[in-house]
Amino acid sequence: MIAVIGARGCDQRIYDLAYQAGRELAAHGFTIICGGLGGVMEAACKGAKSAGGKTVGILPGDNPADANPYVDIPIATGLGVARNLVIIHSARAVLAVNGSFGTLSELAFALQLNKPVVGLETWNVSEKIITASSAQEAVEKITILVRPV
Amino acid sequence: MIAVIGARGCDQRIYDLAYQAGRELAAHGFTIICGGLGGVMEAACKGAKSAGGKTVGILPGDNPADANPYVDIPIATGLGVARNLVIIHSARAVLAVNGSFGTLSELAFALQLNKPVVGLETWNVSEKIITASSAQEAVEKITILVRPV
Amino acid sequence: MIAVIGARGCDQRIYDLAYQAGRELAAHGFTIICGGLGGVMEAACKGAKSAGGKTVGILPGDNPADANPYVDIPIATGLGVARNLVIIHSARAVLAVNGSFGTLSELAFALQLNKPVVGLETWNVSEKIITASSAQEAVEKITILVRPV
Amino acid sequence: MIAVIGARGCDQRIYDLAYQAGRELAAHGFTIICGGLGGVMEAACKGAKSAGGKTVGILPGDNPADANPYVDIPIATGLGVARNLVIIHSARAVLAVNGSFGTLSELAFALQLNKPVVGLETWNVSEKIITASSAQEAVEKITILVRPV
Repeated sequence: MIAVIGARGCDQRIYDLAYQAGRELAAHGFTIICGGLGGVMEAACKGAKSAGGKTVGILPGDNPADANPYVDIPIATGLGVARNLVIIHSARAVLAVNGSFGTLSELAFALQLNKPVVGLETWNVSEKIITASSAQEAVEKITILVRPV
Repeated sequence: MIAVIGARGCDQRIYDLAYQAGRELAAHGFTIICGGLGGVMEAACKGAKSAGGKTVGILPGDNPADANPYVDIPIATGLGVARNLVIIHSARAVLAVNGSFGTLSELAFALQLNKPVVGLETWNVSEKIITASSAQEAVEKITILVRPV
Repeated sequence: MIAVIGARGCDQRIYDLAYQAGRELAAHGFTIICGGLGGVMEAACKGAKSAGGKTVGILPGDNPADANPYVDIPIATGLGVARNLVIIHSARAVLAVNGSFGTLSELAFALQLNKPVVGLETWNVSEKIITASSAQEAVEKITILVRPV
Repeated sequence: MIAVIGARGCDQRIYDLAYQAGRELAAHGFTIICGGLGGVMEAACKGAKSAGGKTVGILPGDNPADANPYVDIPIATGLGVARNLVIIHSARAVLAVNGSFGTLSELAFALQLNKPVVGLETWNVSEKIITASSAQEAVEKITILVRPV
């Protein structure tokens, strides 16, 4: 299970990037876990479904129906932004696509918890964030990071 | 998605009852959501898998590997007992099998949030809990409760 | 720190009972921790302040200004009903005054976590709940329960 | 109530800076809310107490006794790192002193929730973080930020 994190509001270029990332992750057999809402989250889920993948959405509110239509398993936490931690704890690695302050907090938690992080046009706050310049490259790097030794 | 709640520690008779409940739920096409650990939670997941069903485990700790082996989607919350609320929020209805104080707190939350609750040999704290005397009867009653009107 | 739990909506008799309980707790030197909202929570805080006591309110929302006017320290959790657990974890003992399903869930958590519980006209779900028939008696029993051995 | 955030592990110079910050905040009449543990959190509480201030510690674990000895009101959340959000939600403004990834996640949440943030030798991730070069300057800036208009 790989987390895809990124902003609810994003432009078309970032949406397409997240879609490609979701599609590549699914093609490599990964299940996607994300915040379950719009923007980057929706794009990644939509991309994953286009490749026959599985998607989990960890929602801030208490209504599973708030999930975007590409979420297979909507989890309604009722915890507000604290749900971000549930995403990070549950993932083997994190793929950050662009993003605003919410994404930065998730990135920081991922780094604090020593989860591998790959970033696509995202916050540059640590050398621990492995950067990639395309969705394909990002997913290849994730595949290597989570490979059993 | 139907929640199955019940104690981590249970005797063989209750384990079998939870197994039957999980099996019936899966046979009716429901996905099971539970606390992801042992006892009633493991039995319900095992039963669901025996009928080709899908299972989600909402764990109190921060390690997805703590889930019982019959959980398909382990969600590590790191929230301790507060994870119980995530289970209740995410479910359309709740099936309580026996259970101790932890189950009572989940039952109370389900009643507070107006989720339909069916009980098998569980706490008798409200007329809102619909009782059943077998796993089959319990799942039939749940099927009626969540049927779109 | 002693938790006072009870419903947001209550009649005048229960409000008076919670007020007396808060007053007695403060007179015995205890700080009160509660859910910070109206009804039993407000009454207990008001009673405590009338005796010069200190009050902490653990709120479900994200705005400290939601606290009732008798809360000295408003803690905004943004966690919804999961805030109930914060109240129970932080208290040395729990005083339940009447209450509905929300109170039942708190009672169940307190029993699960082996916190001493004294009840005034509340749920009768366990022999572990020590009953009292007046605010004075309830606070005397709490004083004994939390006394260092 | 002003949040002081910073790492559990810090050197003597940062400890002294956090102590001065806590002392100044208390001298200006603010209550301090922090994570309740060691390092910057302990230093800020110790400083506040030295000026007769009041301190609240929001703990990750479930035992109020885990708080540092300068915490007046220990709140045991049992929520792990999710407790960071409770600190931010409850504060009118945030003072960040140095800090590692945990502090970065708190900073990001504060920025996401539009809380005023003053930073002392901390993460430089946004122009919204108002920097200060001494504890005195930081507290003066906070005083202006939270002044009612």
